[in-house]
Amino acid sequence: VAALKGVLFSINPEVRLLDLSHQILPQNLRQVAYFLRATLPYFPAGSLHVVVVDPSVGTARDILYVELAGLRLLAPDNGCWTALLEDGRQPERVLRLAEPRYWRPTVSATLHGRDIFAPVAGHLSLGLDPALLGPPVDHWVTLELPQPRLSASELLGEIVFIDDFGNLISNIPGPAWRAWEDRPVRIELIDHVIDRRVWTYGEAEPGTPVCLVSSVETVEIAVVQGHAAQHFGVRVGTPLRLTLE
Amino acid sequence: VAALKGVLFSINPEVRLLDLSHQILPQNLRQVAYFLRATLPYFPAGSLHVVVVDPSVGTARDILYVELAGLRLLAPDNGCWTALLEDGRQPERVLRLAEPRYWRPTVSATLHGRDIFAPVAGHLSLGLDPALLGPPVDHWVTLELPQPRLSASELLGEIVFIDDFGNLISNIPGPAWRAWEDRPVRIELIDHVIDRRVWTYGEAEPGTPVCLVSSVETVEIAVVQGHAAQHFGVRVGTPLRLTLE
Amino acid sequence: VAALKGVLFSINPEVRLLDLSHQILPQNLRQVAYFLRATLPYFPAGSLHVVVVDPSVGTARDILYVELAGLRLLAPDNGCWTALLEDGRQPERVLRLAEPRYWRPTVSATLHGRDIFAPVAGHLSLGLDPALLGPPVDHWVTLELPQPRLSASELLGEIVFIDDFGNLISNIPGPAWRAWEDRPVRIELIDHVIDRRVWTYGEAEPGTPVCLVSSVETVEIAVVQGHAAQHFGVRVGTPLRLTLE
Repeated sequence: VAALKGVLFSINPEVRLLDLSHQILPQNLRQVAYFLRATLPYFPAGSLHVVVVDPSVGTARDILYVELAGLRLLAPDNGCWTALLEDGRQPERVLRLAEPRYWRPTVSATLHGRDIFAPVAGHLSLGLDPALLGPPVDHWVTLELPQPRLSASELLGEIVFIDDFGNLISNIPGPAWRAWEDRPVRIELIDHVIDRRVWTYGEAEPGTPVCLVSSVETVEIAVVQGHAAQHFGVRVGTPLRLTLE
Repeated sequence: VAALKGVLFSINPEVRLLDLSHQILPQNLRQVAYFLRATLPYFPAGSLHVVVVDPSVGTARDILYVELAGLRLLAPDNGCWTALLEDGRQPERVLRLAEPRYWRPTVSATLHGRDIFAPVAGHLSLGLDPALLGPPVDHWVTLELPQPRLSASELLGEIVFIDDFGNLISNIPGPAWRAWEDRPVRIELIDHVIDRRVWTYGEAEPGTPVCLVSSVETVEIAVVQGHAAQHFGVRVGTPLRLTLE
Repeated sequence: VAALKGVLFSINPEVRLLDLSHQILPQNLRQVAYFLRATLPYFPAGSLHVVVVDPSVGTARDILYVELAGLRLLAPDNGCWTALLEDGRQPERVLRLAEPRYWRPTVSATLHGRDIFAPVAGHLSLGLDPALLGPPVDHWVTLELPQPRLSASELLGEIVFIDDFGNLISNIPGPAWRAWEDRPVRIELIDHVIDRRVWTYGEAEPGTPVCLVSSVETVEIAVVQGHAAQHFGVRVGTPLRLTLE
């Protein structure tokens, strides 16, 4: 990461640089996808985001420049960014990086972040016309994310993200759950039953398992002032089922 | 954290932003208190510090804007900042955030950092008059920190902070300890006796347990080039006793 | 680290500050040396790098200001920077910090980063003439790094660095290894034999141990989409031997 920053600053010493996360597990594209979906919409139009979670570095996979909802991304063509396309949204522009003149003169086979992403980001930050980076493309790799199954009496999803506090974020949409606000619901995380529904952590005693709507507007299971993932011994992929009683 | 930064940059793209720490344990208000006391005094007058360690997020607890010794803070009203008031110091100004016009339009029940703290910080960084944020208050939650018991022949305190190197920082004031410079002292960390007094780590051989004055001017127990917390198997709250022999 | 940043910003609120790494193990000077060698060459001329890995803080060791290949460093005189001198390169300038007027008024015995490095860096960032910091020196501590033994039929080195992904970076130069491109080679990591040579990770199936040239142009052992250090249970110092068959 330090070498990337060095390359970027060598090209544009005035660049405004922000570290978004260094806590993505290597090669975990789904984690990247949920992270980008939870954070990128909060950034200002025109901001440029460099995603270098790239298990296929050095192979024939392309590197893409994407414009989407006013944001700009540089990302490997591995689908990490396509969760931003849900609800039928389309990117305004997708290019494939093809002009080595904007890369470092020698490109390592294992560190494209330093040798391609960083210099291209540096040139873009100086105002380079993206059209010079390479040709437009209209196909790209799409990452399939697990979809919840929603019916009138059952919301069936899974844990898709575990945050830094150990809270379990599911893919069940918050609005579907809110619609059952006044009705008795059975909440099952595999074979655990969660008894308490809250709006925020502070409503229940420390140590209480609770079900609430997360800050990304999906159903979340938490343990108040505790670590739900350790408490239940669950991981990403664990099923969560909400049933009207 | 990335979403917070996004909100802040959306409001003020020119803001100068610094990450102070992401290593505070969740819900550990005492750790926040000692951290703020060890670091905030080194910042320039007028700098704005956003503290979002907030176990009661979403409940009725207030969020405060504080001016204190030339610094400005945004913090939940949970006492995390009141260790800065020791020695009878008073804040110059305390307000309670009450104007949603400076918040995000939709406020999540679990992520006030993104939805209240970040936008308010953004507006303040643009020069917003703090008086517009809400009414002044003259009561707030105070966090009681463990106080040492100091007598002419005994200094009795406890470990209140463990730094990244595993050094054990106590709440016994350095000056009281320095006054015994030339006299024999028995140093007891629960049932361990520390034999070596030094001014700095390099005076003793690697692996030696030593007692010295910490960089925050309190008594510290360290293991030279080692990890004292692991070496002694102790945690925050462990008693430390210094006795004139 | 937060206190250091506070001191720096108090002196120069406009300073452009970048965190390079907080993941160096305490007291691991060799790790610092390899880190600096892998990252500093990518930074722009004139950039100032502050190295505070300093197991001898507070003892009589000097603090140096170094100009080298267009870069500037502040570092303890413990040899952490001398790996940048390989290939017979000489620093353009080395000074010993000796002017307390550029330090904090009170210098703690255990936190020179906050009390000496940060304020000196702040003054330098404002344009202070380095000659005012102290006298030139022509001797300094040199850190001896393990050297590979290279012959026409055998390249014998060791693992000198383990990156964040668990990849094992050796000190065997990439060019020597590339010269054997078309010839059968036996690759031994202590008693493990690596069968697969690749140019980049994506060429082999996940889980395959591979040998390749690292992004710092030395021989590297990796496990595709895995963690080689855990896979082989090896650490820094493990011998690596490449033999022509």
